[in-house]
Amino acid sequence: MKIYDRAGFPNPARIRIVLNIKNLEEQIEFGSVDRIGAEHKQPAFLAKNPFGVIPVLELDDGTFISECTAITEYLDNLDGKPVLTGITPREKALIHMMQKRAEAELIDPVGLYFHHATPGLGTTLQAYKSPDWSGRGDWGNQQRDRAVKGMAYFDTVLQERSFVAGSTFSMSDITVFAGLMFAEAAGITVPEDARSLRAWRARVAELPGVKQRSGQTFLPEDLKRLGF
Amino acid sequence: MKIYDRAGFPNPARIRIVLNIKNLEEQIEFGSVDRIGAEHKQPAFLAKNPFGVIPVLELDDGTFISECTAITEYLDNLDGKPVLTGITPREKALIHMMQKRAEAELIDPVGLYFHHATPGLGTTLQAYKSPDWSGRGDWGNQQRDRAVKGMAYFDTVLQERSFVAGSTFSMSDITVFAGLMFAEAAGITVPEDARSLRAWRARVAELPGVKQRSGQTFLPEDLKRLGF
Repeated sequence: MKIYDRAGFPNPARIRIVLNIKNLEEQIEFGSVDRIGAEHKQPAFLAKNPFGVIPVLELDDGTFISECTAITEYLDNLDGKPVLTGITPREKALIHMMQKRAEAELIDPVGLYFHHATPGLGTTLQAYKSPDWSGRGDWGNQQRDRAVKGMAYFDTVLQERSFVAGSTFSMSDITVFAGLMFAEAAGITVPEDARSLRAWRARVAELPGVKQRSGQTFLPEDLKRLGF
Repeated sequence: MKIYDRAGFPNPARIRIVLNIKNLEEQIEFGSVDRIGAEHKQPAFLAKNPFGVIPVLELDDGTFISECTAITEYLDNLDGKPVLTGITPREKALIHMMQKRAEAELIDPVGLYFHHATPGLGTTLQAYKSPDWSGRGDWGNQQRDRAVKGMAYFDTVLQERSFVAGSTFSMSDITVFAGLMFAEAAGITVPEDARSLRAWRARVAELPGVKQRSGQTFLPEDLKRLGF
């Protein structure tokens, strides 16, 4: 198997955590995609994923799998012990519900804010900014507000449960964790009063499989190219 | 089990098809949510789903499951024969990849076009329109273009396969099918040259479980309230 990604980017980080937890890293070959240089928008990469996003998993039979949920379902079910995606119908349902919410209410709006209301990855990669970009950045900033509301939602969830989808760690925890990493890199802070979310984050950061990835948002060379 | 939905709306239609295919309709109680009257944004419904979208599945133990993928995973796995969500890791991965694409590249942009670039469901429900709404409807119309590109993508996929995620019908076929129903209701036509997509659609419309739902986009009384 081969993963095409870029270390440090939010969605690649999700799958790197899955690989660590499932002890699969040694079975995987990694191909680095120059995300800032827009390599993922070139024909060679678009043949792997026509929508031009990373990460992509290439199976040994040549099948390409993209989208983090799909890649996680594959990797988690390989050994017949789906600890991240659930066993019972109820577990599967709660994990997929929270996975969708973690994307729609956190990691996606953070990405939209980053690309539309900040210089993001630069104009080569993101030529189109939302209509109000030159002025108030209205739509992009609404996405930031949505992400902050998403954090408040996950805080209420974590007041009642140990993990995002129940009493055990799942793929949806990884998505919220990566969402908070990305938010921080984009300049969106977790509200001070989101105490349960902050405590959960500190706990998750210490888990085996997650610990190796904690805090690694963007490679140093990529940060330099982004002007940090 | 109980489903809170509104017959004829796109996402409820997805789950109604799942229920038909899995022969579960008789085990389900239905609660109709007045979507146009914004009942799904009132406290009683928000207690079931804080993000105020339908459908929602209530389990017998009182657990609420929302998001179509999550509800489908639940219903499809109840009998231990997950014909819609896959058995092998590769099947699961391809189905989830195509499910995500069917949402992101078809049903979601159709919804954004409908709500932001047309009168949609009216100003009570959708007070905020995208910035250019009063003039060119720029962002909303880009979403229409994205949906049309999505149709072209699914057409190329269906040139090579019988169904969206492979050789058998899956949950991702239901999502594309509902996406095309919604597109039609919103005034977006499937391009004439998307022959494989059109042929697939005609075939899917005749499948047991789907046939009962074909063409039922919005209840007649809802269409009347929308001014049709």
